[in-house]
Amino acid sequence: MSRYLKASYEKMEAYTPGEQPRDMEYIKLNTNESPFAPAPSVVEAMTAEQVELLRLYSDPTGKSLKEKLAGLYGVKPENIFLSNGSDDILNFAFMAYGQDGAVFPDITYGFYPVFGELHQVEFDEKPLNADFTVNKEDYLNQNKLIVIANPNAPTGISLDHAAIEEILKSNPDGVVVIDEAYVDFGGKSVYPLIEQYENLLVVRTFSKSRCLAGGRLGYAIAPAALIEDLEKIKYSTNPYNINRLTLLLGERTVEAEPYYQEKCREIIRVREKTAAELKALGFEVLPSDANFIFAKTSAMDGASLYSELKKRGILVRHFTKERIKDFNRITIGTESQMAQFIETVKEIIQ
Amino acid sequence: MSRYLKASYEKMEAYTPGEQPRDMEYIKLNTNESPFAPAPSVVEAMTAEQVELLRLYSDPTGKSLKEKLAGLYGVKPENIFLSNGSDDILNFAFMAYGQDGAVFPDITYGFYPVFGELHQVEFDEKPLNADFTVNKEDYLNQNKLIVIANPNAPTGISLDHAAIEEILKSNPDGVVVIDEAYVDFGGKSVYPLIEQYENLLVVRTFSKSRCLAGGRLGYAIAPAALIEDLEKIKYSTNPYNINRLTLLLGERTVEAEPYYQEKCREIIRVREKTAAELKALGFEVLPSDANFIFAKTSAMDGASLYSELKKRGILVRHFTKERIKDFNRITIGTESQMAQFIETVKEIIQ
Repeated sequence: MSRYLKASYEKMEAYTPGEQPRDMEYIKLNTNESPFAPAPSVVEAMTAEQVELLRLYSDPTGKSLKEKLAGLYGVKPENIFLSNGSDDILNFAFMAYGQDGAVFPDITYGFYPVFGELHQVEFDEKPLNADFTVNKEDYLNQNKLIVIANPNAPTGISLDHAAIEEILKSNPDGVVVIDEAYVDFGGKSVYPLIEQYENLLVVRTFSKSRCLAGGRLGYAIAPAALIEDLEKIKYSTNPYNINRLTLLLGERTVEAEPYYQEKCREIIRVREKTAAELKALGFEVLPSDANFIFAKTSAMDGASLYSELKKRGILVRHFTKERIKDFNRITIGTESQMAQFIETVKEIIQ
Repeated sequence: MSRYLKASYEKMEAYTPGEQPRDMEYIKLNTNESPFAPAPSVVEAMTAEQVELLRLYSDPTGKSLKEKLAGLYGVKPENIFLSNGSDDILNFAFMAYGQDGAVFPDITYGFYPVFGELHQVEFDEKPLNADFTVNKEDYLNQNKLIVIANPNAPTGISLDHAAIEEILKSNPDGVVVIDEAYVDFGGKSVYPLIEQYENLLVVRTFSKSRCLAGGRLGYAIAPAALIEDLEKIKYSTNPYNINRLTLLLGERTVEAEPYYQEKCREIIRVREKTAAELKALGFEVLPSDANFIFAKTSAMDGASLYSELKKRGILVRHFTKERIKDFNRITIGTESQMAQFIETVKEIIQ
């Protein structure tokens, strides 16, 4: 770093994305990407003519995609915010709503404390219960920015809607962000509650269930006033932040909803099968509503299992945090990838 | 806006991007896009297989593109920073280096004061000289963040390298950002000076001369320590902020350098021709090193000319700021678009 950098950024620890090693071909079960390509109609939308139009800026309002998403969810276009991935939206939420501090679980998406540090938002990390569920009581009457990933990561465990509604009700002066990056794999979205709660911001992404991680497209569903706040920050940082082609592919994606529903069902089926097989091998597997499972074995520690898998060409994600260091987070790939994963685990632990 | 928004953002005025009306087909001379498609080899790089790979995240390090750009400019990959358009990099620069305040011209890229307000960076806007050149003296011995667009926008006028070097030398404790968005149309880049000045940050973009405005790709060339600062902020906000396909198209673009050089020469030729024709019609035209010209006529005020052109299907950019309200900024399109523009201007003023 240079001697010019703002002092508060010097000490800050940046987020560490999942590794992307290029030394060999891995089975990548470490960054929760989809093993499936986008729908054929999405792939076909990318014509040479569209690529040539990259000479022009994208529509900064994203009008057409907002209308399509609004149609899909039965909300108004002014309830939709589009941005360059859901991380971008979470970053804006910490900027916009963190002035009185933030509250989130101790075990959750590792980016929340990074946003907190970056924007000098004081944050309180509430311990998950012993069974890794969110303790609802911790989030009542806080009136700060509350951020809950639902389902949570890296656990995969969902919080029920009644609990979220209690949290919304008891925090009238704080915005409650529900990060639904993984909701399409068995969770249930709370977006219909935006009609009743002016403090609800639902954040979603095309990266996981919509097979577009490399396209960079996230969106929020929220009351119109919150969307206006986010638009203001976007227009004060980078108004054209979504690729022109990505906006087009996003529209085609919304139109191909049945394809993605089917792929989600397939991921859920393979997840349940993989979880059962791991349990049969003596693993503890947390109940997951996501496209990953979080599991540990008494046969070896988490870091060793991670390394042994990597040596054999399979990448999973290991976190060094004390409370979860015996676990690994395993993205659900195709059925044959997961069969190979299970065979490799057997080979390692037996 | 909501009652939850951080107070300092409430008063802030966001940037207004150039209009993108969809009520009819316009000749778009208002947002400094290229009238030319990307090189054929760039368009061909977008295969169905590449689109299918959008299921995977992009390489957050951008290693391969950094190597190609480093090769093109004869610097090291660690002197290159990649981000989601040059606005993104300018935003990071205000975050990272604005703690002691910022200095930039009163007439320049309208986003600089927006970044200043957003990040609560006190800024001092120095009036351009009467002939719209930058007054070098204003930027000496400031030791703050100095931001100079070179060539400047919307004037198109360049500052010479001797002046920039004096500014760099006299501000050892402030970072000097040279925003070279338009440098390829007749300006001269200062990036070779990064070898001598630890405080030089050169910001560039693929949006103008590289015909990829909709692709969202900007880069910086700077001493390695400054690049590390920017990487830290990127990894604390949105590490995967560049589209996977854009990284690929960026590489192909670097490889097609001769194509883009030729297109720049063509823009320059048409610019000079258009400027001469406007002068023949009695316009005052500032000397431009950019892909636009900034011009006014005593025949009518700037806002009226803008409106009359728009009625006739031609969009240019008008700014309401007092000092430049008689001018319009006209992007250089193809030779035939500019011929039509000149004919339309004649029709309006005669």
